Amino acid sequence: MTAALFDRIAIIGIGLIGSSIARAARQQGLAKHIAIADISEEVRKVAAELKLGDSCHAEPGAAVRDADLTLVCVPIGAYAEVGQAIAPHLKSGSILSDVGSVKQAVLRDLGPLVPDHVHFIPGHPIAGTEHSGPAAGFAELFEGRWTILTPLPGWDEAAAAKLSEFWTRMGAMVETMEPMHHDQVLAITSHLPHLIAYTIVGTATGLEEHTQREVIKFSASGFRDFTRIAASNPIMWRDIFLNNREAVLEMLGRFSEDLTALQRAIRWGEGEKLEDWFTRTRAVRRSIIDAKQA
Amino acid sequence: MTAALFDRIAIIGIGLIGSSIARAARQQGLAKHIAIADISEEVRKVAAELKLGDSCHAEPGAAVRDADLTLVCVPIGAYAEVGQAIAPHLKSGSILSDVGSVKQAVLRDLGPLVPDHVHFIPGHPIAGTEHSGPAAGFAELFEGRWTILTPLPGWDEAAAAKLSEFWTRMGAMVETMEPMHHDQVLAITSHLPHLIAYTIVGTATGLEEHTQREVIKFSASGFRDFTRIAASNPIMWRDIFLNNREAVLEMLGRFSEDLTALQRAIRWGEGEKLEDWFTRTRAVRRSIIDAKQA
Repeated sequence: MTAALFDRIAIIGIGLIGSSIARAARQQGLAKHIAIADISEEVRKVAAELKLGDSCHAEPGAAVRDADLTLVCVPIGAYAEVGQAIAPHLKSGSILSDVGSVKQAVLRDLGPLVPDHVHFIPGHPIAGTEHSGPAAGFAELFEGRWTILTPLPGWDEAAAAKLSEFWTRMGAMVETMEPMHHDQVLAITSHLPHLIAYTIVGTATGLEEHTQREVIKFSASGFRDFTRIAASNPIMWRDIFLNNREAVLEMLGRFSEDLTALQRAIRWGEGEKLEDWFTRTRAVRRSIIDAKQA
Repeated sequence: MTAALFDRIAIIGIGLIGSSIARAARQQGLAKHIAIADISEEVRKVAAELKLGDSCHAEPGAAVRDADLTLVCVPIGAYAEVGQAIAPHLKSGSILSDVGSVKQAVLRDLGPLVPDHVHFIPGHPIAGTEHSGPAAGFAELFEGRWTILTPLPGWDEAAAAKLSEFWTRMGAMVETMEPMHHDQVLAITSHLPHLIAYTIVGTATGLEEHTQREVIKFSASGFRDFTRIAASNPIMWRDIFLNNREAVLEMLGRFSEDLTALQRAIRWGEGEKLEDWFTRTRAVRRSIIDAKQA
């Protein structure tokens, strides 16, 4: 085994992503001590049973004390609160990062609270499943997936390199991106797909009861893929939409225009328009398979 | 092996579904002779190499001659043409069925062409993948999945029972349904999901080139699931939308209302509304897992 990258890391919030990091960091020997913290007693209990951390804390401030790397893995709406709790305890020269799906909001909420002596490098692993909680995580979650870092101007190159190595040793590929651009790309690749999956599954639950049962029964025809996406953590997703509002509404506007155009083509029987559109989208799948992200 | 159900079956159109039926029927010994027909020479060549049929025909009329069961497995837009080609050759007392995703249109296009001495029992296996063509099929496609039959008034019970047995011996579960109701259920479980997947993937291809490349790269965050659905056969889907217009537009109307409500909740920061909605949709996933259709 290669040497540990950090003496102590702190993982704040031990859900799907936090617990996957804990498992992968342990498996790869990336830290001598893994401190975990979670606000929920129930979650801490499960995390303790699963032996996810070397120490388990109710107070995030206690977890980050002496940590060389702190990773915030809570829903974005809780960042300000977590920031206030940990800021006074962050070790000088340590790295503070996170895994949130919106980066401008993280800069807004966490940025002002970070002491000058701490290297603040927001991050976002593009990985996940529809399951939530500490038992849902697994060490291989990040393998072959991208992690995006959105460093601030004047960032410390050595700290960023160390954080990158942490992710690559968990199997991820690392890329840097401007925070605003990150939020736009994620709005179309992740936030809008989740929003429309949530919408259609909700639409189906609004149908009369008899039809609803059949929707479940015959879901193998396309619907079930949407239900998987629409089973993701409600609080995490509420916070994503509230905190990436502009980019989501912008992409939603484009989507709605396109949907209206296809709706019109269906109403007026414009088969060629439909076929052209469907042929174009088919090529996108090929690109994703070629990029090994299928 | 149990006895063959039919002396000869004819499969018209040997794409994903047709070739899966050919494979499953062969594997289960359901027919002494499997006659296949396809309009495309290229497809026939592949089908011959894969030995999908005992005989392979360019003319559907030649395939159905003496067949005890004929299954039409072509895009819905080609039903009228196929119907005209096969009607004079259908064997007296034989069964004519199909696998199309819209049933009222099948009754409209094929119904008037079917001779009185033939048992016409439309069908629809709720199974498929995003791949197309004779090489994409596999014998297990129907295992554990539903096949819906939409029999007409005064149908022959014995013929329907035989067709049901054909499907159950390929691993499917069989259910009967009114054609109009079938089209409504499929509009929400299959047609609308495909339409919005096609839409969002198209929306993404409309973005500026730089962002497009990133959409591919970071597609693991939700988008890639939509690209899979939006890679389905363009002609088949064009025909589905054109032929189930009323039900699709009705469900699309409901979806658009719901999407607008969520859009408004995002714009006005109504977190509770979003969380409630996302919690409700999560339960639907549980039902699908319980129904073993996940």
